[in-house]
Amino acid sequence: MSERPGASRFAVVLVRPDSPENIGLAARGMANAGVADLRFVGIDRLEPPAWRTAIHAEAILEGARFFESLEKAVADLHLVLGSTARVRHDFPLVSLAEAVGRVGEYPAGTRVGLVFGNERTGLTQEELGRANVRFHIPQAARQPSYNLGVAVTLTLHALVFGAGGLPAARRELLLSHGEQAEAGRRFRDMLDSFGFMHDTNRAFITEKMQDIFFRMALTAKDRDVILAMFRKALEGPREPRPRRTTGEKTHKEKP
Amino acid sequence: MSERPGASRFAVVLVRPDSPENIGLAARGMANAGVADLRFVGIDRLEPPAWRTAIHAEAILEGARFFESLEKAVADLHLVLGSTARVRHDFPLVSLAEAVGRVGEYPAGTRVGLVFGNERTGLTQEELGRANVRFHIPQAARQPSYNLGVAVTLTLHALVFGAGGLPAARRELLLSHGEQAEAGRRFRDMLDSFGFMHDTNRAFITEKMQDIFFRMALTAKDRDVILAMFRKALEGPREPRPRRTTGEKTHKEKP
Repeated sequence: MSERPGASRFAVVLVRPDSPENIGLAARGMANAGVADLRFVGIDRLEPPAWRTAIHAEAILEGARFFESLEKAVADLHLVLGSTARVRHDFPLVSLAEAVGRVGEYPAGTRVGLVFGNERTGLTQEELGRANVRFHIPQAARQPSYNLGVAVTLTLHALVFGAGGLPAARRELLLSHGEQAEAGRRFRDMLDSFGFMHDTNRAFITEKMQDIFFRMALTAKDRDVILAMFRKALEGPREPRPRRTTGEKTHKEKP
Repeated sequence: MSERPGASRFAVVLVRPDSPENIGLAARGMANAGVADLRFVGIDRLEPPAWRTAIHAEAILEGARFFESLEKAVADLHLVLGSTARVRHDFPLVSLAEAVGRVGEYPAGTRVGLVFGNERTGLTQEELGRANVRFHIPQAARQPSYNLGVAVTLTLHALVFGAGGLPAARRELLLSHGEQAEAGRRFRDMLDSFGFMHDTNRAFITEKMQDIFFRMALTAKDRDVILAMFRKALEGPREPRPRRTTGEKTHKEKP
């Protein structure tokens, strides 16, 4: 298969897909766009009906990889886009066209992951929280949502054939997604070591930190500056305290 | 189903579709875009598997209409777009994005037909010749083409959600497609009555006339001006001759 310039930047990640026919249709849509990197989370093999709909895309199914978590599936990528059919109001959501614009801001070497959830249940809140950009394909009414294979095809079509061809606004590559996650964890640990976290807010702060760090889509320089800056701010007025054990009651000491 | 402004302009015409699942997927893609007018040529009923994939689009299947020819299926529409997966070089072909631009040139009342052929064989040359605009959905390689249901969804998505929102450049409604066909026939008959056609070129000229007339996408004013102009040009230097019977040898009298 001849590849469009840039098509090899993209990886498709299907999380817990139910229907083998939809998987095959997604693979065919990848072949339509010249994209070959297919990854799965939550299933560990493909059922035969997937081949029935993967017309001229059998090689994509053969080369697919299976991961035990979304975190591992996207660790080597730079920019992760999570798809959601439900318009939720608890986090920023862009349209597919805007998502294409966002991808276009980054340099050509940026590896982009497109994550799609289960046909009925979609991605979990936590999985969407791992995405740098959360996007929605516009639809006329609340129902029906797009078929999974169709959603993959529409998204890749827009990214590969619909991009405006403007030069990238940003020059630096992002951290890999795994490094972005690591930066979020370091920041959380830093907050923890300075006494900002306790049993009642630990989960909330961890989730918020992750959310903020992924939304920032950090480069290495961003990370270094942000971590140094916050370390300074946190160290400033207070003395470092020993990290608390999780069993200890701490809510009265909330800063 | 709530409709997007303008979505009711569009009708989808499927010519000789093979797979009921693809028909259902096309109907779902229509529902995604808020389009409800589904027409068939070359089949006279739907098989049950169509309902399996027409999720939240059952009403579209129930309301579908069956026509005995493409000509009849599009007669009440103004602008007809024919889809082809093969890039042929014997007629003008635009990309889907350009087709969206072409549709955007016409006023909001323009009723637009989107015609898709059989999954393997597509539209015939003659059927494509009935289209005002022939378009191609860009793909990375010669194979695979887009799944039929996916092609319908991609096309409607681009038309309904992707249009730029510029005001229409043209103000007059086109003739209905049936009237455009009739104008082509009148022109052909006019050529015939003036001795331009004979047995060896009749089929060729008829096809060319049809092709040219559909490509012009005529308004009523266009038609009147063109027919009057050509009548004048044809009448000018020569005397009207009686129309020949088709059995007569005429190639020696070619003007």
